[in-house]
Amino acid sequence: MIIQLEKDISGHLKDEVLQNINNIGYKTMEVSTQFSDYLVSVGKKEFDIRKIGNLPGVRDVHRVSDAYKLVSRKWKVQPTEIDLGDGVKIFRGGMALMAGPCSIEGEGQVEKTVEHLLKNNIKIMRGGVYKPRSSPYSFRGLGMDGLKMWHSACRPHNIKIITEVMDAEQIEAMYDYVDIYQVGARNAQNFTLLDGLGKVDKPVLLKRGMSGTLDELLQAAEYVFSNGNEKIILCERGIRTYEKAYRNTLDLNAIPILKDKTHLPVVVDPSHGIGLRKYVAPMALAGVMSGADGLLLEVHHEPEKAASDGQQTLDFAEAERLYAKVEKAMGLR
Amino acid sequence: MIIQLEKDISGHLKDEVLQNINNIGYKTMEVSTQFSDYLVSVGKKEFDIRKIGNLPGVRDVHRVSDAYKLVSRKWKVQPTEIDLGDGVKIFRGGMALMAGPCSIEGEGQVEKTVEHLLKNNIKIMRGGVYKPRSSPYSFRGLGMDGLKMWHSACRPHNIKIITEVMDAEQIEAMYDYVDIYQVGARNAQNFTLLDGLGKVDKPVLLKRGMSGTLDELLQAAEYVFSNGNEKIILCERGIRTYEKAYRNTLDLNAIPILKDKTHLPVVVDPSHGIGLRKYVAPMALAGVMSGADGLLLEVHHEPEKAASDGQQTLDFAEAERLYAKVEKAMGLR
Amino acid sequence: MIIQLEKDISGHLKDEVLQNINNIGYKTMEVSTQFSDYLVSVGKKEFDIRKIGNLPGVRDVHRVSDAYKLVSRKWKVQPTEIDLGDGVKIFRGGMALMAGPCSIEGEGQVEKTVEHLLKNNIKIMRGGVYKPRSSPYSFRGLGMDGLKMWHSACRPHNIKIITEVMDAEQIEAMYDYVDIYQVGARNAQNFTLLDGLGKVDKPVLLKRGMSGTLDELLQAAEYVFSNGNEKIILCERGIRTYEKAYRNTLDLNAIPILKDKTHLPVVVDPSHGIGLRKYVAPMALAGVMSGADGLLLEVHHEPEKAASDGQQTLDFAEAERLYAKVEKAMGLR
Amino acid sequence: MIIQLEKDISGHLKDEVLQNINNIGYKTMEVSTQFSDYLVSVGKKEFDIRKIGNLPGVRDVHRVSDAYKLVSRKWKVQPTEIDLGDGVKIFRGGMALMAGPCSIEGEGQVEKTVEHLLKNNIKIMRGGVYKPRSSPYSFRGLGMDGLKMWHSACRPHNIKIITEVMDAEQIEAMYDYVDIYQVGARNAQNFTLLDGLGKVDKPVLLKRGMSGTLDELLQAAEYVFSNGNEKIILCERGIRTYEKAYRNTLDLNAIPILKDKTHLPVVVDPSHGIGLRKYVAPMALAGVMSGADGLLLEVHHEPEKAASDGQQTLDFAEAERLYAKVEKAMGLR
Repeated sequence: MIIQLEKDISGHLKDEVLQNINNIGYKTMEVSTQFSDYLVSVGKKEFDIRKIGNLPGVRDVHRVSDAYKLVSRKWKVQPTEIDLGDGVKIFRGGMALMAGPCSIEGEGQVEKTVEHLLKNNIKIMRGGVYKPRSSPYSFRGLGMDGLKMWHSACRPHNIKIITEVMDAEQIEAMYDYVDIYQVGARNAQNFTLLDGLGKVDKPVLLKRGMSGTLDELLQAAEYVFSNGNEKIILCERGIRTYEKAYRNTLDLNAIPILKDKTHLPVVVDPSHGIGLRKYVAPMALAGVMSGADGLLLEVHHEPEKAASDGQQTLDFAEAERLYAKVEKAMGLR
Repeated sequence: MIIQLEKDISGHLKDEVLQNINNIGYKTMEVSTQFSDYLVSVGKKEFDIRKIGNLPGVRDVHRVSDAYKLVSRKWKVQPTEIDLGDGVKIFRGGMALMAGPCSIEGEGQVEKTVEHLLKNNIKIMRGGVYKPRSSPYSFRGLGMDGLKMWHSACRPHNIKIITEVMDAEQIEAMYDYVDIYQVGARNAQNFTLLDGLGKVDKPVLLKRGMSGTLDELLQAAEYVFSNGNEKIILCERGIRTYEKAYRNTLDLNAIPILKDKTHLPVVVDPSHGIGLRKYVAPMALAGVMSGADGLLLEVHHEPEKAASDGQQTLDFAEAERLYAKVEKAMGLR
Repeated sequence: MIIQLEKDISGHLKDEVLQNINNIGYKTMEVSTQFSDYLVSVGKKEFDIRKIGNLPGVRDVHRVSDAYKLVSRKWKVQPTEIDLGDGVKIFRGGMALMAGPCSIEGEGQVEKTVEHLLKNNIKIMRGGVYKPRSSPYSFRGLGMDGLKMWHSACRPHNIKIITEVMDAEQIEAMYDYVDIYQVGARNAQNFTLLDGLGKVDKPVLLKRGMSGTLDELLQAAEYVFSNGNEKIILCERGIRTYEKAYRNTLDLNAIPILKDKTHLPVVVDPSHGIGLRKYVAPMALAGVMSGADGLLLEVHHEPEKAASDGQQTLDFAEAERLYAKVEKAMGLR
Repeated sequence: MIIQLEKDISGHLKDEVLQNINNIGYKTMEVSTQFSDYLVSVGKKEFDIRKIGNLPGVRDVHRVSDAYKLVSRKWKVQPTEIDLGDGVKIFRGGMALMAGPCSIEGEGQVEKTVEHLLKNNIKIMRGGVYKPRSSPYSFRGLGMDGLKMWHSACRPHNIKIITEVMDAEQIEAMYDYVDIYQVGARNAQNFTLLDGLGKVDKPVLLKRGMSGTLDELLQAAEYVFSNGNEKIILCERGIRTYEKAYRNTLDLNAIPILKDKTHLPVVVDPSHGIGLRKYVAPMALAGVMSGADGLLLEVHHEPEKAASDGQQTLDFAEAERLYAKVEKAMGLR
């Protein structure tokens, strides 16, 4: 049950609402976000929700049967729009392109990428400065120095930055330099990190876990929201199956279903999703037609020389052909 | 190694070719199809294939490293076109729509479906008369009587019939009434059935197994081809994963990869693939953009009353909106 | 609902029972097996089963909520014992060892194996004469000639034969030479084959499908039983997962659960299950402790030279060490 | 390549070794653990390792082709023994029982559990004070206060504590109160946490990820080891598959294979593994026979009233019957 309180509810009235819910036998969590205050009450007993809805100071009450509550579309039908400033938005029905390398490697690479983005009117650059790597002996990214350099290159052009945050301790240091915090598949259920990202007011993109269910993804989003941050984007990036003909199994079934279940925007990462360069474009277009609100794409001026994961990375020319097709496909939806 | 012989090669020359291959230590299978004669030789030794290529009576020799040989695009780059007669074709780059109910239920239903297909200029009708059912107590289809009735209704309109064959013994009886034999996911490795379908000259559509790999699907096709039938269509229909938010996980990654690996046409079944009616349309469109050469769609005049599996079946109005979108999407590829 | 009729029920009384069930709105299938006659009625309406139970000629009535009925332990608590004759039985709480090569190769091999079995007091020999192979170019077994030769070698010693049957057409020809028909993982939902095996009176061993659920395995058994054959053995043989460190994922969780759900005996095939020779013994022992009523083991006098799948095959010395451990482990259960 | 240096190697000689490796084109990481100093060099070029082995100050050189190096048994054949003090050890060929509740709930519960452990001569108590929960609205454990209370109850009896650590920031605060840090399945690739646990000198138990490969588990261990901590235990706890008859698929195949690949001890968690109380005992025994060096078991004085996950928890009487069987089974290995 989600209870929206009046903006100016008195402490006294609020206590009375809490008392009433408590009497029913429900546990309540108070949630304050950038946008509103909520009470989320969880319990099993059946009762007439008008008993709460009619209390003074209560604006609205919704019963939500899903395990996730605040991110459910059963409660909030109106889609959530993510505003990154300077007119850059991620929203339902739109197509937010986020392109860039797997890893930020150096100034030259960043400049070339920024140029490519400007040329193609792309407003969001992706890239990694902290890289989760299976092996401790692999390159793990340029870290904060890389992020600052990258930020300096993007800011003059109002290009927004999305990059992975790997643990709660990094959140604060990264804050001034990122526009969207990305949570990777391996951290999809790192609850300390999710709690921490609920306490900042910048957008968070949550990737589905390696073998994450849609329900788990939505509950991860619930962690962020219930800690106070409503600016959440969900991302399908491929799941782990028995099939070894490709790196992951990009699961486009997730797109229409997630969009049915939640008011949050949903994007697709076809690069990691299929993991093979020559198939990224058809999967990206398939993602668009399945209803994605954005795409995360790996591009590099010289994919063969990329510091990491070049095998799924498009070169600039391939990317441009894809952007053009995406734009056309948008006309069809 | 695939060896194409001259059409009019003498028995003597052919024996000499076989002897030469044998001397290298390769085993050879002779394959005669509707279209040509081949020798498929399997072995491990490295040697100069010109030793065989230069023999009299040999038209061409190809080394194929894949486990499947005759269906590989490494050997035959030119796509295989499936000609159903009356101008109906399934081919690479086309969009063969195959629509109809899960089960053939009776004359009224068939007539309504035929009318719907004619109205929408769809040339192939799908439907089941032998239904593979997990439980022995479920409806198992109308059998041959249903097939004959269905055939009578379609023939006057030149509508082609695709339906599932469940074992080798049924092939002959069904022959006069089907245009495409469909092999279901549960029979994806029923090798007796595949052998049998290799011995007829009608097209065969092979569905990927429940948890079939692309390699297994291609080897199933190799069974059909190597028994003498080149008219094969591959079909992605969803795989089994841990996720239970949908019935199967339609795996569109398969489409661009299969089209890269084989010269056979590749189609998608989004109805069984995601298994939930309201998400069939986006997945169908995603399938088109991933490169599919056709779609298998479940439609019914009254899905709620369908004899089987109505939960994934479109009604005629939904289907028509989808056809229109598919046509537009084709303009983008 | 399963209704057991009195042995000598008159046609008139039986019709009356059928009429009564029909009046409730249930559909009924009459099942006659080697051992008894049953009516299996399927429907959704709630009603007092005593209404049927009290009818003249009815011995007993059971409500079974599972999708499978006749194989459910909710109905028949007493375990099913499979009697192969000559004192050889497969039964709950026992340990039926079934050992032999992947493929029957020739007389020398069969004789050596028989000798090994006799020495170790093993009563059932496994082996393949029809081999399901992913590739049409692989060795597909010696067929009926091999089976007859094998049978001649085993009969004088009362060694029982278990071997795979690949389609319904083979059942009759194999009948005189097999003691247990084995259905392989690839045919786990070949319903024509299952129907056919329900019509003979010899035992059937059903392997779980590649990605078969326990429910599907039990329903496959229901096909055999409801066609008239109660002599069924279930076999766990490894499922398909994302993990590639071993060939299949032997799923021992299936053993205690299947034994809880059904009255049929349940055995384990650790050889195919893990697919790697040096790990077969620990998995076999783990299978014993998980509650298996038998083991299928691949043994060969020279595994390195086996015609197929030698990589998971024990040599005689390894096998003997394992038999001794299995015997000890049985003392612990 | 792993290079073990002489204990007293001079800085000059060490630099020379590093220079030599660098000249070959290999990158080197210096690793100092509780027990020794190592150089781990990673590169692709083939060369004669004696070139390094013969340098002054080098004790030994090993080529390790696995992606993991220091945890590989290709390098260190002698098994790693985990000494928890007071004579409590986890080691290859042993059977370390670790029993206790899912969540620490309060003093009464802890006292009852300690009594149960003492009675059964079990030296290690498991329990959660930080609980990873899919939903933010679930009970998340008693935290540090609970841990301290628990520790006070265990210390007088020399009972060792294993409990989950959820992020790197918790490591220091928990240090004085835990004997083994447990890393849960959801954090199996939380590299910040793994790095942090490499910097303490207390043992770490790593659970396999939800859909983690054996290779990933071993590389997670490599993170801990290469950061300086050799005291690592691996734990199989069930993987995610398509099958829904049980909570997870306990994958016992992992046990013999891991023990072949690494010198670290390997334990099994059958409680989470199968997730259903009545099947825990057979799976535990199966785990013992597959070669496990220890078991993690959920026990509670009143499982039906447990704060979390009671459905897989044994009561004390069930647990005692299991301990007795485990002991007998150990006699068989």
